[in-house]
Amino acid sequence: MKDLVGIKDLSRDDIKLILDTASSFKDVLKRDIKKVPTLRGKTVVNLFFEPSTRTKTSFELAAKRLSTDVLNFAVSTSSVVKGESLYDTVKTIEAYGVDYIVIRHSSSGAPHFIAKNVKASVINAGDGINEHPTQALLDAFSIIEKKKNLEGLKVAIVGDILHSRVAKSNIYLLSKFGVDIRLIGPPTLIPDMGDFGVKAYYEMDEGLRDVDAIMMLRIQMERQGKGFFPSIREYFKNWGLNMNRLSLAKKDAIVMHPGPMNRGIEISSDVADSKQSIILDQVINGIAVRMAVLYLLRG
Amino acid sequence: MKDLVGIKDLSRDDIKLILDTASSFKDVLKRDIKKVPTLRGKTVVNLFFEPSTRTKTSFELAAKRLSTDVLNFAVSTSSVVKGESLYDTVKTIEAYGVDYIVIRHSSSGAPHFIAKNVKASVINAGDGINEHPTQALLDAFSIIEKKKNLEGLKVAIVGDILHSRVAKSNIYLLSKFGVDIRLIGPPTLIPDMGDFGVKAYYEMDEGLRDVDAIMMLRIQMERQGKGFFPSIREYFKNWGLNMNRLSLAKKDAIVMHPGPMNRGIEISSDVADSKQSIILDQVINGIAVRMAVLYLLRG
Amino acid sequence: MKDLVGIKDLSRDDIKLILDTASSFKDVLKRDIKKVPTLRGKTVVNLFFEPSTRTKTSFELAAKRLSTDVLNFAVSTSSVVKGESLYDTVKTIEAYGVDYIVIRHSSSGAPHFIAKNVKASVINAGDGINEHPTQALLDAFSIIEKKKNLEGLKVAIVGDILHSRVAKSNIYLLSKFGVDIRLIGPPTLIPDMGDFGVKAYYEMDEGLRDVDAIMMLRIQMERQGKGFFPSIREYFKNWGLNMNRLSLAKKDAIVMHPGPMNRGIEISSDVADSKQSIILDQVINGIAVRMAVLYLLRG
Repeated sequence: MKDLVGIKDLSRDDIKLILDTASSFKDVLKRDIKKVPTLRGKTVVNLFFEPSTRTKTSFELAAKRLSTDVLNFAVSTSSVVKGESLYDTVKTIEAYGVDYIVIRHSSSGAPHFIAKNVKASVINAGDGINEHPTQALLDAFSIIEKKKNLEGLKVAIVGDILHSRVAKSNIYLLSKFGVDIRLIGPPTLIPDMGDFGVKAYYEMDEGLRDVDAIMMLRIQMERQGKGFFPSIREYFKNWGLNMNRLSLAKKDAIVMHPGPMNRGIEISSDVADSKQSIILDQVINGIAVRMAVLYLLRG
Repeated sequence: MKDLVGIKDLSRDDIKLILDTASSFKDVLKRDIKKVPTLRGKTVVNLFFEPSTRTKTSFELAAKRLSTDVLNFAVSTSSVVKGESLYDTVKTIEAYGVDYIVIRHSSSGAPHFIAKNVKASVINAGDGINEHPTQALLDAFSIIEKKKNLEGLKVAIVGDILHSRVAKSNIYLLSKFGVDIRLIGPPTLIPDMGDFGVKAYYEMDEGLRDVDAIMMLRIQMERQGKGFFPSIREYFKNWGLNMNRLSLAKKDAIVMHPGPMNRGIEISSDVADSKQSIILDQVINGIAVRMAVLYLLRG
Repeated sequence: MKDLVGIKDLSRDDIKLILDTASSFKDVLKRDIKKVPTLRGKTVVNLFFEPSTRTKTSFELAAKRLSTDVLNFAVSTSSVVKGESLYDTVKTIEAYGVDYIVIRHSSSGAPHFIAKNVKASVINAGDGINEHPTQALLDAFSIIEKKKNLEGLKVAIVGDILHSRVAKSNIYLLSKFGVDIRLIGPPTLIPDMGDFGVKAYYEMDEGLRDVDAIMMLRIQMERQGKGFFPSIREYFKNWGLNMNRLSLAKKDAIVMHPGPMNRGIEISSDVADSKQSIILDQVINGIAVRMAVLYLLRG
């Protein structure tokens, strides 16, 4: 495989291979010296057309742990601003002789377009409302770490599913492993995803009952007052996760969030800091999973 | 010691150890190959909530000379902008498995708060109007390089003491070594620092008489017209350092400035470029001192 | 030689030495591991006062391929913004103990000024409307790769010669090798360069006849409506390169562009993507040439 542009087209075996490899790299991350010379002499370009520090930093660290050189391509001061086409930008980057292009772009499909046009490995770090595959992989890795398997689990995804590439990639992944997927949120924010065997719940209490894992999504403040939900206060009242609601899930249910969190909006502070929260495990697992992806794409 | 958050709590022995270690690293900086493998595999995150190139670059170079990986966390494009709390930002950075967090923040006390909450070593690179410990250490290193000892010296600190974390850290440090500290500036900009045995001078000529070292502070232009001093021209006339005034100090008195300088405002160009100026020595010594701090915090 | 500030003062032998060295480094760039330890322990500072990703990235990659440390000095958040003089900024950078300063500045002559004031090697990455020497070197390298020699060739440079440092450096270089240089564009944008044996053509069809290479220049959109040319549409009609016009040149003529391109303005898409276009070769050759310059300046 040359590229990782989405979860949709991966097989179960592809996914298992990535997660198993990530598991070896997680051991490296526990060492005092967290660096291996595996990809020495290779070059990774971070090409982020949307601001992001969290995902970019995670890729940068994953790359450095593997001893690659990393270039952060500053889109805001680049030729892109001068009106250069995406095609010319990436052909130029390809001509630099880089090995990987990690791309985030506001247009769904941009990574696929690039992958077709360059010899470098392209990794989708989020495209529009389409996919964010490494997030779904690290989420799966984090669930398995606590629950051993995905098969047979009940997982709730709560919030703005419609605009969330994180939710989409997770749905594609979890549905391949027979997970009972529940989408919870206001009707305006839950798209029809019938093909993937998901079930929509507009009442949070009903949706959370007996689940093994709860994936909270970030609410984009800028969606407020655009008809998707009445108000932030109303939103938290109906779809925010607090300790009372968490008690409806299984006793050992885990709570996840891709970050950055809006405490008191989609998630209460006591839930975020509770023992059931694995939000910080997700961060470290993100590095292990991205190391695995970088490693396997050159394998 | 896990962290360096301020000079206030350091003992004389702590300070001497840092300065002695810096002295060894300064030798490394004189070599053709200025790099040692001492901290290979470690990761330093620069987390600057206030714009700064000078201090950030100095830390970045110090870290690279020791062979660490360095991540510049771009606050302006980060989750912080999306409303993430400082707590969540640093817990996330901790989860990345980094070894050091170098932080500059406009709130006094921010580094202390972070130090309590993460396992990584936290180094204060300037917090509000509180402290800037590595600046005081490099200043002490630079004075000793020229004057052998701190004990018994007369040192004048000139300018906006009130808002200066550089001045505060220097006062804490120099007072531990029995230095005769003179604060010179308009009464509006000299706080009461009675506990530290300093003396205030509102007349520059009087304050400079017979001193061994003069530390000039940068005047923040944006303070103008806020009642602290009448005007820039008035300020230079009363508290700017020119050759005439310099001649009031000891013949071999040294002139220091943390940079960036306002030539013609707090310091005249001929003083800045004179043989008594050690302003550029301060820059190179800053790297040696920061190498020492990084080295010792993992010792 | 300590610095590379312009092509003007280089001898033919200097240029040949750089191009021969670049040729060896291009072989390195074709390997799977594109990195050599040649300049390990050295430090390069990228000091770009004008936004640029293309040239900065090329220098950064060239430096990393040679195993140096690279610091990108963020001018926009630096002391420069706080009013520090260029002199103080570079003296500070020199005090950091860096080995190379790569500078782009909007003032013609800034690199020369800096070169005189620091011990580090200074490389001009573009100064005002004066020179961009590494661009001319990579252009020469790219021509020779296809045409074996420069001697006796006919080369057209098309566009805004007046404001183009790329054109200037190319004219200085090509004229040293007896190239028949033709400057093509609106009379308002072609300066008098009589001393260098160039010939001006205001009619594109006439200028392109029988040339071996066509160097297209980028049109700065912001020049529009300032009396230099009537309109973008008019410009393309008169001085844009399309397939029809390209057929006036020699059959095996090559097409070059320093990037970023304005497709449909100075160059049509089919020309940009045609087999005669060596635009992406220029990108990779840029890295080889910059590696050669970094290498030779410490030789």
